[in-house]
Formats: sequence, C-alpha cells, structure tokens
Amino acid sequence: MQPLHGRQVAGHRVVAALLPTVFSQAPAALRAHIVRHQPRLVICVGQAGGRSAISLERIAINIDDARIADNAGRQPIDSPVVPGGPAAHFSTLPIKAMRAALLDAGITAEVSQTAGTFVCNHVFYALMHALATEPAFASTRGGFIHVPWLPQQGNPSMPLADLARGLRLALQVALTTDTDIRQAAGQLS
Amino acid sequence: MQPLHGRQVAGHRVVAALLPTVFSQAPAALRAHIVRHQPRLVICVGQAGGRSAISLERIAINIDDARIADNAGRQPIDSPVVPGGPAAHFSTLPIKAMRAALLDAGITAEVSQTAGTFVCNHVFYALMHALATEPAFASTRGGFIHVPWLPQQGNPSMPLADLARGLRLALQVALTTDTDIRQAAGQLS
Amino acid sequence: MQPLHGRQVAGHRVVAALLPTVFSQAPAALRAHIVRHQPRLVICVGQAGGRSAISLERIAINIDDARIADNAGRQPIDSPVVPGGPAAHFSTLPIKAMRAALLDAGITAEVSQTAGTFVCNHVFYALMHALATEPAFASTRGGFIHVPWLPQQGNPSMPLADLARGLRLALQVALTTDTDIRQAAGQLS
Amino acid sequence: MQPLHGRQVAGHRVVAALLPTVFSQAPAALRAHIVRHQPRLVICVGQAGGRSAISLERIAINIDDARIADNAGRQPIDSPVVPGGPAAHFSTLPIKAMRAALLDAGITAEVSQTAGTFVCNHVFYALMHALATEPAFASTRGGFIHVPWLPQQGNPSMPLADLARGLRLALQVALTTDTDIRQAAGQLS
Repeated sequence: MQPLHGRQVAGHRVVAALLPTVFSQAPAALRAHIVRHQPRLVICVGQAGGRSAISLERIAINIDDARIADNAGRQPIDSPVVPGGPAAHFSTLPIKAMRAALLDAGITAEVSQTAGTFVCNHVFYALMHALATEPAFASTRGGFIHVPWLPQQGNPSMPLADLARGLRLALQVALTTDTDIRQAAGQLS
Repeated sequence: MQPLHGRQVAGHRVVAALLPTVFSQAPAALRAHIVRHQPRLVICVGQAGGRSAISLERIAINIDDARIADNAGRQPIDSPVVPGGPAAHFSTLPIKAMRAALLDAGITAEVSQTAGTFVCNHVFYALMHALATEPAFASTRGGFIHVPWLPQQGNPSMPLADLARGLRLALQVALTTDTDIRQAAGQLS
Repeated sequence: MQPLHGRQVAGHRVVAALLPTVFSQAPAALRAHIVRHQPRLVICVGQAGGRSAISLERIAINIDDARIADNAGRQPIDSPVVPGGPAAHFSTLPIKAMRAALLDAGITAEVSQTAGTFVCNHVFYALMHALATEPAFASTRGGFIHVPWLPQQGNPSMPLADLARGLRLALQVALTTDTDIRQAAGQLS
Repeated sequence: MQPLHGRQVAGHRVVAALLPTVFSQAPAALRAHIVRHQPRLVICVGQAGGRSAISLERIAINIDDARIADNAGRQPIDSPVVPGGPAAHFSTLPIKAMRAALLDAGITAEVSQTAGTFVCNHVFYALMHALATEPAFASTRGGFIHVPWLPQQGNPSMPLADLARGLRLALQVALTTDTDIRQAAGQLS
C-alpha cells in the first residue's frame, strides 16, 4: 500500500501504515490508525508466498495457529483471536466486483477462502470484529487482501507496478460499489 | 467410508452412507441418518482433487459459491447455507490429535482451513449448525474430512488401502480423544 | 510475440509469426520463416497453463508424447521428433543472463528443465536440430520460452503488458549477450 | 531400496546401496557397485520433495546446476556432467509399462520429463552414459526413479509401505518387460 499513501482514490485520501508482525501488537496498532483517521474503508494487505494472484479474502476465522514464531517470538497454537468471539467474520468488501475489475484490467485476481491462521488472519479477524461490534465503526467497511511475492523474492510473484495498480483499482471498486456478499446483510443486520 | 461400514471401531459400530451431491438434498439426507442412528460421532467425507493428504477440515463457513452445477443442475452463488446462521462453525473433532496419529501411522495428513464453498462445505456447515443448535444432538460431535483422489483418478492421490486405514484411525482417535480445539469450548458454551 | 512484430530491438527487426499447433506442420512452417528471413535469433514462444513465470527453456528432447490430440487430431505417443536424432539439444540462448535481466526488471522469470512432450517441445527440438546440423544456420541462435496464461484465462497468469515487456527484454539480452550455457561450447563445437 | 536389499524379484537378487550426495563421488561409487555385481538392471532412486507420485524419469541431461551445495560443499553451475557427452540420455527402462503396473496396483505413479539438475540427475546421466558407451555394460538397462517424501517429512508424501511395494513392482516390470521407449532403439543402435 505504501506506493498509494497520500494518493486520492474515488474522492478519498489513502493512508498507508505498516503494522508489526506481532500477534499481541498488530490489532491495537491498527485500531489506533482507525480511531485517528476515521476511514470510510479499511483494507489490510499482507504477503502470501506461494500465491500467484491478488487474493481477495472472503472470511476471517477466530483462531491463531502459528507454524512459526511472530516477530516477538510468540507462536500461539489453537487459541482464539478474540475469546468468546464468533467463529468467523465475513469481509464486507465487494470481493466479486473487485475480482471482476482486476481481471478486466489484466491483473490476476481470485477470491480466497482462507487468510491462514497467522498474523494476517489475526489482524483481519480483529478488524472485522471491531467493525462488527463497535458502534463508532458502524459505517466503516473492511477486508483483507493477500498479495504474491515480488519477482525478486521468488516464484510465483507479481511485479510491483501491477500490485500497485491492482490495489488502487481494488480501493476504487470498494469505495464505489455496494458489497456483493449477499449473506452479509442477513448476518450482520 | 464404505469399506468401514458395519465395522467396530473403539466400541462403536460404523454406519456409512452416501449423500447426494445436491445442495438442496444433502443436509436433509444426512439429518435423516443422524436421527435414525443417534451417532456418537458424525464425520462427513468428500473427495478433493488436487489435495495430496487426508485433510482434517477445521471450519465450515456459511456460504455456497459454486463454480459448477451440482448433480441437480443448481449453482448457488454467494448465498448462505443457513440464512441468519453464524458466519462459521468450527469442527468439534480433535483434528490435531487425529493428524498426529495419522502421521505416526505413516499416512499423510494435514489440517485444512477451508472445505471450499461447494456441496462439501454446505454439508459440513449444515451438520455443524444442527449439532450446535439442536438440543437432541448436544452430545454428538462432528466434522469433515477431505480425501485425495485414488491413484487411478489422477495425481496427487492416495491408495484406497491407506485411505481406509487412515479413516479408521481418524474415527478411533475422534472417539477416544477430547477435542483439542481450545476455543470450541469458549464459543459453544 | 505479436505485439513486438515489426519493432526494432537491439538493432534488429522483430518478425512474429504464428505456427500451427500441429506436430506434422509446425516445423516446416517454422523452417520456411527461417529460410525467408535469415534471422540472427529464433525464439519460439508457447503458452503453458499452470506456470507462473516466463520460463526460459533449457533443453529440447527428442520425443513426442501427447496426452491430447493436436489441432490435426494426431496424438503421437513415445515417438521421436527426428528419428535418429540425438536425445536432446540445449537452447543456445543466454538463459541465465535473460533470467537475471527479467528479474531486475521486476518480471517473474525462471529457467525450466522441460518444455514438455507436446507440440512446443516438438517445435523446439526441430528448431535446435536444424540450427545444429544445417550449415546455412550456423550463425543463428535459438531457443524456446513458455509464458503463463493471461489473467482472463486463469490462475496463475501474467498481464499482457508484462509479457510483452518481458519478451522484448529477453530478445534484447539474447541479441547482446554471449550464451552462458558453458557446456554448449563443448558439445556443439 | 533398502527394504528390498537381498530380496528376490523376478529371479534376480536385489542389491541396495547408498550413494553419497556428492557430485564428485556418486558416479564412481555407483560404478564400483556395477562392476562388482554385474547387474542385469540398475535403478537409481532419489527423493524429490514436492512430488506426490513415484516418478519414472524419462531422460537424464548433461548439466549440473545446483541451487544448494552438495554434501561436500560444492555447487556446480551450468557445467556438464560429462564434458563432451551428448546433451541427454534416455532411460532404458520400460517406464510406461511400469507406470501402468503401479497404477493398476493402486500406487500413484507418473512419467517425469526432468530429474532436475542436482546430484540425482548427475548420477542418472553418469549411469546412462556409462551404459551407453562401455561395451562391458551393453546388456545392462538403467534408469532413475524419484520418490516423494515420507509422511513424517512433509506433504505431499507417500507411506513407506507403498514406496517399498511400488519399487518392488517397478523392478519386477523392468526385469520382465522390453523397453517401451521406441526411440531408444533408433538412438542407441
């Protein structure tokens, strides 16, 4: 997201911020940004080695299950992101419309059914839980996008210019399209 | 499961039944079997081409999103399995203990974070929703296992003898081990 | 290659031509182009679904083994491309230098050890065999590049603009760099 | 192969031996075994992480290109296995008949077009080059089989019992079937 920081997209200003890859710190850091900027839209972005497309995550699940330690040396196994929280939260982004726009623009994109069980999913769940449960965030939509490696990092990968163009387009669609997750209305209302 | 039908495992008799690959029929067919047999444990099994391990599914999500039609010609897109149901239900099987036992027995096994969005996930969600919400099923545990192709069907695959041995062992562990999904207690109680 | 047709690269004019996906016709069609244009360099390009990088093929092997029929309905099984020809020919392109240049330019690239056993490898072998055995082609270098799907065709894929940029850069490096396949000298001299 | 050491297969005694994963030592070690035992058949076996089937290698290529160092700390890049040797040698095993027999026995098997460019391919090429060029080995057939990880090592994998059964069957077919690589006759005669 860094290349988009400060840019205007669909009448909104993009604020990009880096979160620590630390289970115990990332949600609070994200929350501080949300409280400060009062965004219309929150899209978290993480890198997923092995994926070859911009992955629009559909659902965050209430579990941490780390195969490696985070940057603070912690490795939670089968513990909830939010004790007592629901098993999962759906993204409230229009992921199908985003995928269609990306493909139309010649950028590989897919809807993904799992954001994993590491810090990415942890942040995603914490975000969606806050948006779903705190009245102050009632009009904020959110979601998560996984991106491939850069070409220098390995294969499969996606060039940085395509990533930046893809994320910009994803933001634009998310800001101008109603959610297409039909069940979201039923479940969140 | 067919090779295990009628067999005794950990003091219980295995009943194997085939469900139709039809969104609108599979849950009711499964429910009829549960009502008739009052099982201690319900494990649904489906085949997942492209997977190379016995996949112990962690979570069922409340969405149908079919890329192809089911056997009745229906292809639901982004519709809920159970309107108004929670976004997801966790398996109540001891999936980590099952994985460990399978690996110890020399059978490739993994925990999977997605059962997809086709009939398999539909059945899995319907099962877990019924077990979680209907008092008659309060003491029944359930989950879903995806298995690879057979060698004759393509690659990756798993020989039938290993599949049968693996499913038998999975049943045995599930019948003799408490669930290790720590958050399950918190969420379902 | 079509987007590069007629363009100048490193002082040479690009001629792009489409070959039929037919075992019995493609080599002769390629040969006619080579005889007419007397190229400095011949790079054949084919699409390989499932690959996520621009694949610089290292070696063509003397076998046809088709899992599906070609566009003329022929499906050779375990028959040689050139009866009596050597088991394989190495590409005479500087594939390592090409890979490095592509990665530096932010385009995913890899050296591949197999061009398969379908029409792509058939054309590749026929090309390299002609270049290696016919004195008229003694100063012509050649090779094969597999490219991913376009984003509209499936995942993994590569945007058309990156493909065109990557192929142009590959041509440029091939025209301005000596081969880096060290054994080539030993084997072809 | 260790589980098959000393066993009788199709009237022949199996000798299993471990080669060092060292470019400079493995061919000589293999050659010493061949000279001592005068085998009817030589099948080298290596493990290939990431493969999910017993892979019957079709062709050995005359190149070493190591991404990591061997067990002696050497990492050859783009150097020939045998300077001045042909670009490749085909396996002289009946790989299609072996694949069919394995699949019939319920064991995942495939024909592979590349044995890589590390020590496995190095040994394979050195073996086939010796068999093709030394009169003393004129009646010996040879080839290479890559096997998946064991389940304890990772996914994809194959249980040890299936591996042993598969290799035994592969030996049996190779000892009782004429080669089905049609071009082999043309090229080796």
